[in-house]
Amino acid sequence: MKYSSTGRTGTAGRTDTGSVEKVADELRALADARAVGARLPSTRELQQRLGVGPVTVQRALARLVTEGALVTRPGAGTFVAARRTPRVGDTDWQQVALGASPVAGSGGVELVLGRASVHGFELGAGYLDASLRADSRLAAAATRAVRRPDAWAAPPAMGVAELRSWFGRQVGADPSEVLITPAAQGALSAAFRALLPAGSPLLFAVPTYHGALAVARSAGLVPVPVPTDADGVRPELLERAFAATSARLLFLQPTYANPTGAVLAHDRRRAVLDICEKAGAFIVEDDFSRWLGHGQLAPPPLWRDDDAGHVITICSLTKILAPSLRVGALVARGPVMNRLAAMRQVDDFFVPTPLQHTAIEMVTGPGWAAQVRAVSTALRVRMAALTAALAAELPDCSFENPHGGISLWLRLPRGTDDQVVATRAARLGVSVIPGRYFVVGEQDSSHLRLCVAGIGEQDIPTAVALLAEAVHASAGSIETGALVG
Amino acid sequence: MKYSSTGRTGTAGRTDTGSVEKVADELRALADARAVGARLPSTRELQQRLGVGPVTVQRALARLVTEGALVTRPGAGTFVAARRTPRVGDTDWQQVALGASPVAGSGGVELVLGRASVHGFELGAGYLDASLRADSRLAAAATRAVRRPDAWAAPPAMGVAELRSWFGRQVGADPSEVLITPAAQGALSAAFRALLPAGSPLLFAVPTYHGALAVARSAGLVPVPVPTDADGVRPELLERAFAATSARLLFLQPTYANPTGAVLAHDRRRAVLDICEKAGAFIVEDDFSRWLGHGQLAPPPLWRDDDAGHVITICSLTKILAPSLRVGALVARGPVMNRLAAMRQVDDFFVPTPLQHTAIEMVTGPGWAAQVRAVSTALRVRMAALTAALAAELPDCSFENPHGGISLWLRLPRGTDDQVVATRAARLGVSVIPGRYFVVGEQDSSHLRLCVAGIGEQDIPTAVALLAEAVHASAGSIETGALVG
Repeated sequence: MKYSSTGRTGTAGRTDTGSVEKVADELRALADARAVGARLPSTRELQQRLGVGPVTVQRALARLVTEGALVTRPGAGTFVAARRTPRVGDTDWQQVALGASPVAGSGGVELVLGRASVHGFELGAGYLDASLRADSRLAAAATRAVRRPDAWAAPPAMGVAELRSWFGRQVGADPSEVLITPAAQGALSAAFRALLPAGSPLLFAVPTYHGALAVARSAGLVPVPVPTDADGVRPELLERAFAATSARLLFLQPTYANPTGAVLAHDRRRAVLDICEKAGAFIVEDDFSRWLGHGQLAPPPLWRDDDAGHVITICSLTKILAPSLRVGALVARGPVMNRLAAMRQVDDFFVPTPLQHTAIEMVTGPGWAAQVRAVSTALRVRMAALTAALAAELPDCSFENPHGGISLWLRLPRGTDDQVVATRAARLGVSVIPGRYFVVGEQDSSHLRLCVAGIGEQDIPTAVALLAEAVHASAGSIETGALVG
Repeated sequence: MKYSSTGRTGTAGRTDTGSVEKVADELRALADARAVGARLPSTRELQQRLGVGPVTVQRALARLVTEGALVTRPGAGTFVAARRTPRVGDTDWQQVALGASPVAGSGGVELVLGRASVHGFELGAGYLDASLRADSRLAAAATRAVRRPDAWAAPPAMGVAELRSWFGRQVGADPSEVLITPAAQGALSAAFRALLPAGSPLLFAVPTYHGALAVARSAGLVPVPVPTDADGVRPELLERAFAATSARLLFLQPTYANPTGAVLAHDRRRAVLDICEKAGAFIVEDDFSRWLGHGQLAPPPLWRDDDAGHVITICSLTKILAPSLRVGALVARGPVMNRLAAMRQVDDFFVPTPLQHTAIEMVTGPGWAAQVRAVSTALRVRMAALTAALAAELPDCSFENPHGGISLWLRLPRGTDDQVVATRAARLGVSVIPGRYFVVGEQDSSHLRLCVAGIGEQDIPTAVALLAEAVHASAGSIETGALVG
């Protein structure tokens, strides 16, 4: 038997599939809201309530009986059937089929979002709180964007031309070298997988963005750590890492790196590029914090120092504008752009047209300068409050002053476990992210990543005082193997 | 030297980084629009034109000189520098670094989008043309969605609760079993990579959706074909394929499959599930065309027949509403949901909040039934016109009547090459997709995929007449190895 044997509807004018789908959906909601065995209203009542004809109601009821959501007792009416969900099927076989996970398990993935907690103090969130977002300007821009004639059609495959030009100008690239992506994470994910087959080594200047490490691991790539100091990645160790692994890709955040806030020093830029050139390797430059300077202009992207297509630059508007404006760009030169564009198409086709036009209006409109200024000022003030509070409350911890950006890398006293501190801090109402998610392999001490994106200046002293309590209560937690029970 | 050594801005009130960024961007646009060597307006003129102070203009000019976009000649002014882009760096090294491509090369990827051509007749596009889209209702719903208080914040990681409930009701799942995704392609991509490490076999009921094949290949998976007939995938061959490959995943479109429009016959559903259960395997059920029936209700998703978490169902609103409403769902039961959710987070974090709320209003609002009805009716009418025209103009081709959906699988006369026909047809103004992108390995004859999503009823006879011309002019093209030169 085929489903087509039920034939096509021959009662046009009295019922139609759209109405039946709709009524069936309403009946499902009705059944879900009632106890098992409850009687449904009569067909006549349902007709009146839903404003449809008897045939539509009957077809919808028949559908739900077939689905098992309702049962009919002739002469008595229609009743809510015993719930089939949650069903008790045995799903244990899935563990055999799935095997070890490339993405879950370490806890790092869930922390990527650094979601703002509604309770307590947020030193973990990687996105601006509502007070710094341009929500009303976004709403106004989006209201125009969603009403454009082409708003809901597919955009050009590489992105809307005006947006490509704008990103190109920021980076110093031709518009043809720009591919619009859904913010930095989608760009990263496509880039790593487009450039490297599973099993390949991938160099990370550590400590590094935990979301990039999660992408690499989820794609079966092998992260290789290259240590940094206050001036960014260390060239002599980078050279050694390329030689030891034959890697073809380095992930780098030259400007206001996550989690340290460091900038790749001017005199290292050429050295890093020369090493990559010699290795025949790409650099994925994650320029996520271009507009997050603390009152200074950010150094130019590394892209500007490279002619031969080694640098692939990732841009994003989510940090400076809002997390749900998921718009960014991949900037690349040479044949690699075809590879990147093909991977992005396969991943997800394109970035919705209305988001692209909203972004265009936000970055070219009169509010852009004010937004950059407001965020820049707020981050400077917040970071000053954070460093002052840390110096006062946690003199036994150490850190480099961030040059910009939203995060600070706090070195804990020797013997103190980052996860133990983070768990204790959460109980005291302060959210922080353990440093283990930002490194590869071993490090000589524990760290926390602290972030000022989601916390107001006035709350920082209290948050740090509570964090200090958590740190001091966790002293010696590595040696004793103490777990917060 | 570090960039931080330039110090923090001390001229607050007269300039700020936001304004400098903004003015620098405007000067870049100005420079881009002028010839090399052209003189820029004076600082004073720029101040007036841009409405900013002298310090801001000077800092922006200095920045562009550093970037190499402008040159200053003391006493003479500021001039547009020789263009550095397109630069002439040698990017040939990239071919060595990149090696063979998992995504590009075959031409299939660019065809995934089936983008509507502005010229000629569109029998290739997989999205509804503007006449069937609910653009004005979408604009109205989105206008409300972008103004919600939480519109630009990050949504809950699994998606907005009301939307999860709605998708759950359609499929027969609990809301906790629903993960909101960016339409079907993003869901497919995440699912394949979450379930299988690179190198794994993946079964496809062929012919199959070319975008799914592209995902598999891009992830280093090995597609294994399982032939179908008019009733869907053939159980005895499915069983053999699992035994031969130890595959753990089958990709299936049980309802109105792309490209055939076939429905998995009722009496095969249990057989397919039993075979997958015995194999300890998942089924990814791509239910993309649930609302694309031709006046009939679609059969229930395969999900409803499975208790033990074998079926993972993908839903999408892009086909029934609009390509830029990139909203869909992954529906899964058991521990596999954690794996899927983790992969989606790593891929791209979340679907923008405004799109989720727009979708909620579209599917729960009064226009939903009308949209399903309008599309259903139009597709029935268009498909009837297509099958009638094919019978009249191409009696030497054959096809099964689609039960629903947007596509038809046309078997070409023996000896006729699909690519040659498609190229000739494009020259005559008709866009079609060669069948080779929908199959794995060899097939015993060539096919075309024809699609009625993007063409009006009135244009179909002419389009098919032109296509017939292309087919007949290509007779014998396989034997002769003819290429359209």
